[in-house]
Amino acid sequence: MAKDLPVSPLAPERFPDLPPVRGVRFATAATGSRYQGRDDVMLAVLAEGTTVAGTFTRSSTRAAAVLDCEAKINGPSVGEAAILVNAGNSNAFTGRNGEEAVASIVDACAEATGIRRDRVFTASTGVIGEPLDHKKITSHLADLNASLSEDGIEAAANAIRTTDTFAKGAVRTVEIEGKTVTLTGIAKGSGMIAPDMATMLVYIFTDARIARPDLQSLVSSLTNRTFNCITVDSDTSTSDTLLVAATGASGVNVGDSLGFASALQDVMLDLAHQVVRDGEGATKFVEIHVTSAHSDAEARQIGLAIANSPLVKTAIAGEDPNWGRIVMAIGKSGAHANRDRLTIRFGNIVVAENGWVAPTYREEDGAAYMKAQDLHIAVDLGLGGGHATVWTCDLTHGYITINADYRS
Amino acid sequence: MAKDLPVSPLAPERFPDLPPVRGVRFATAATGSRYQGRDDVMLAVLAEGTTVAGTFTRSSTRAAAVLDCEAKINGPSVGEAAILVNAGNSNAFTGRNGEEAVASIVDACAEATGIRRDRVFTASTGVIGEPLDHKKITSHLADLNASLSEDGIEAAANAIRTTDTFAKGAVRTVEIEGKTVTLTGIAKGSGMIAPDMATMLVYIFTDARIARPDLQSLVSSLTNRTFNCITVDSDTSTSDTLLVAATGASGVNVGDSLGFASALQDVMLDLAHQVVRDGEGATKFVEIHVTSAHSDAEARQIGLAIANSPLVKTAIAGEDPNWGRIVMAIGKSGAHANRDRLTIRFGNIVVAENGWVAPTYREEDGAAYMKAQDLHIAVDLGLGGGHATVWTCDLTHGYITINADYRS
Repeated sequence: MAKDLPVSPLAPERFPDLPPVRGVRFATAATGSRYQGRDDVMLAVLAEGTTVAGTFTRSSTRAAAVLDCEAKINGPSVGEAAILVNAGNSNAFTGRNGEEAVASIVDACAEATGIRRDRVFTASTGVIGEPLDHKKITSHLADLNASLSEDGIEAAANAIRTTDTFAKGAVRTVEIEGKTVTLTGIAKGSGMIAPDMATMLVYIFTDARIARPDLQSLVSSLTNRTFNCITVDSDTSTSDTLLVAATGASGVNVGDSLGFASALQDVMLDLAHQVVRDGEGATKFVEIHVTSAHSDAEARQIGLAIANSPLVKTAIAGEDPNWGRIVMAIGKSGAHANRDRLTIRFGNIVVAENGWVAPTYREEDGAAYMKAQDLHIAVDLGLGGGHATVWTCDLTHGYITINADYRS
Repeated sequence: MAKDLPVSPLAPERFPDLPPVRGVRFATAATGSRYQGRDDVMLAVLAEGTTVAGTFTRSSTRAAAVLDCEAKINGPSVGEAAILVNAGNSNAFTGRNGEEAVASIVDACAEATGIRRDRVFTASTGVIGEPLDHKKITSHLADLNASLSEDGIEAAANAIRTTDTFAKGAVRTVEIEGKTVTLTGIAKGSGMIAPDMATMLVYIFTDARIARPDLQSLVSSLTNRTFNCITVDSDTSTSDTLLVAATGASGVNVGDSLGFASALQDVMLDLAHQVVRDGEGATKFVEIHVTSAHSDAEARQIGLAIANSPLVKTAIAGEDPNWGRIVMAIGKSGAHANRDRLTIRFGNIVVAENGWVAPTYREEDGAAYMKAQDLHIAVDLGLGGGHATVWTCDLTHGYITINADYRS
């Protein structure tokens, strides 16, 4: 277990001020299961009129709670709902025992809150393969339900942390029809981050009113442009879960509002970036922008090949403007590329073009650029109209220390 | 440049005794281009009657010398040939300048040796994107040709090293029709190793007599079971080149000899394993054996997903029997897998089966097993007849040090 990790140098100055969202209440508790002296369970209860949409990992060894959520997500579309999350044990690859643990937790949550079983969504994050002692969770449910509060979101963001070095939150408001709609979200994740549907655990709350199919369609589409475009270490979690709950309490219908879609995308991207900024061992935040690719899919493929390359990531860690490794990653990506049409830029510096190093490029300019904490790498393929942006961090001794010296 | 790297703890005790192969002569020289005080160019000259087969990286940004070799490999099938390799500069992504450098080197080599230009195969390995000063190489060709010797293979293996911490050689002999056929080979490579056709640079020599199409077919097929099944860091070189030269000087026809094919596979696998044992920062050699997969291709896909997972590799570095990360890697691989049919073994220890931890498994047994230097991980999918074996090393602080602190 990763104890006493220093806070990421890329962390925001502080947790943002997240206003209450009408119809959403939180509670947290400490079960003492894996972590001592801190809360490790969070309950969110959503009022009547709430619709819930979600995306989940596509891993073929996904956790019991993920399978349960997938089965429920297309169920009754409007009503009260509950989200219950524990940190420290992912209850993944725990066989029948794992399924029974989920059933017991859902039962206990339904009983304590009075919410239908098929509207109780759970998640577990932490070590894979260790049986989950569900009684340590279920014994707290009555107390959790009794302590629900509209102001508990920061405590909830803290309760779901594992190797995270800071709690992640985001907020946007949008004016629609003269009324204010609020969106808040929390996330956890810093390793095993190469989401194949969503990231580790993300919960977003809004008082907007929106039908479930519209919300699901919006969430699925935005996931592909946000959480599915980040990577810390190319490893995909067995527990990735993103849930968006819309309580409708603002009374504002947002089904076709571009303003709402844009605000939701902002919240998702804000949280996705915070996950990268808390990447295990990260010291640099890197945006990779790929343009003029054969297609959007190939642009993302190239962006992720660069973002996941250990040689690119270690060069960035060493502040080495080793653009040859970017050429290598483009070459291995499997996407269309023509050496002589490639252009590579570090920030505004043209590094390579026309099949070799740019005549104006000076190594000292590249080296100076690489000293920044936030880096922007642009790759233009010169082929078609495909583009994508992906985000990643560097690969440092800190990643090795966290993952070779602890069981996380 | 990686200076003074300690020799890999996985290195063989010493370079093997490689006997001369009739019809093959070597010479080396020091150009002083990037490395000081050591040879960095090797020339191999192959006698009349030689057939040459090869496989090359499929990277879309492959180096100028690779493109030149690809254009020649299917050319005149029998005759004298030359192989010229320089270390320190890969001449990749160097545009027209790179193509001109290859042409100049080939011309100079043809002139010095009297060998046809289309039978001169070159390769360059080292930093990507820096123009190659070809005169530093061509000025040595007359001397190289004058100093050719049947006994120079160990010097040749040393001359092609970059971040390699030891020279790599292998030998097999096989009796066919009462005569002895000899195969020797050398290789270099320790980072940017996830071959997509061959490994960094591999040269294998035999006095067997075999027609070029038969040799090419054998080499292509064996590459898929050897070099294409190793990975150090998931990054694919722009220069991967494997050449096998058969001089025919033994007078033994081996076109359909299973003994020859087996000996060639042994040499290729021996060199491939040595590349992994010199993986940058490696402290563990890991064999991953996947059985009962949906297909051979999916077995390899799962094996490589495990072998390339930073979380699996760091757990191995930390001697942590964290089998949950293997479950994660199987899950993210994209290949068919059924949680409840999976079996995972460390050596002879059954770790997980029937969808969760094996009832007989004890964490202390797993922890004791992980302390070994050579590890064997077996994954049985319980689905079909597909199987594959892949080889990798762990991911350590040493990898970060080599790649973040040096430009290699």
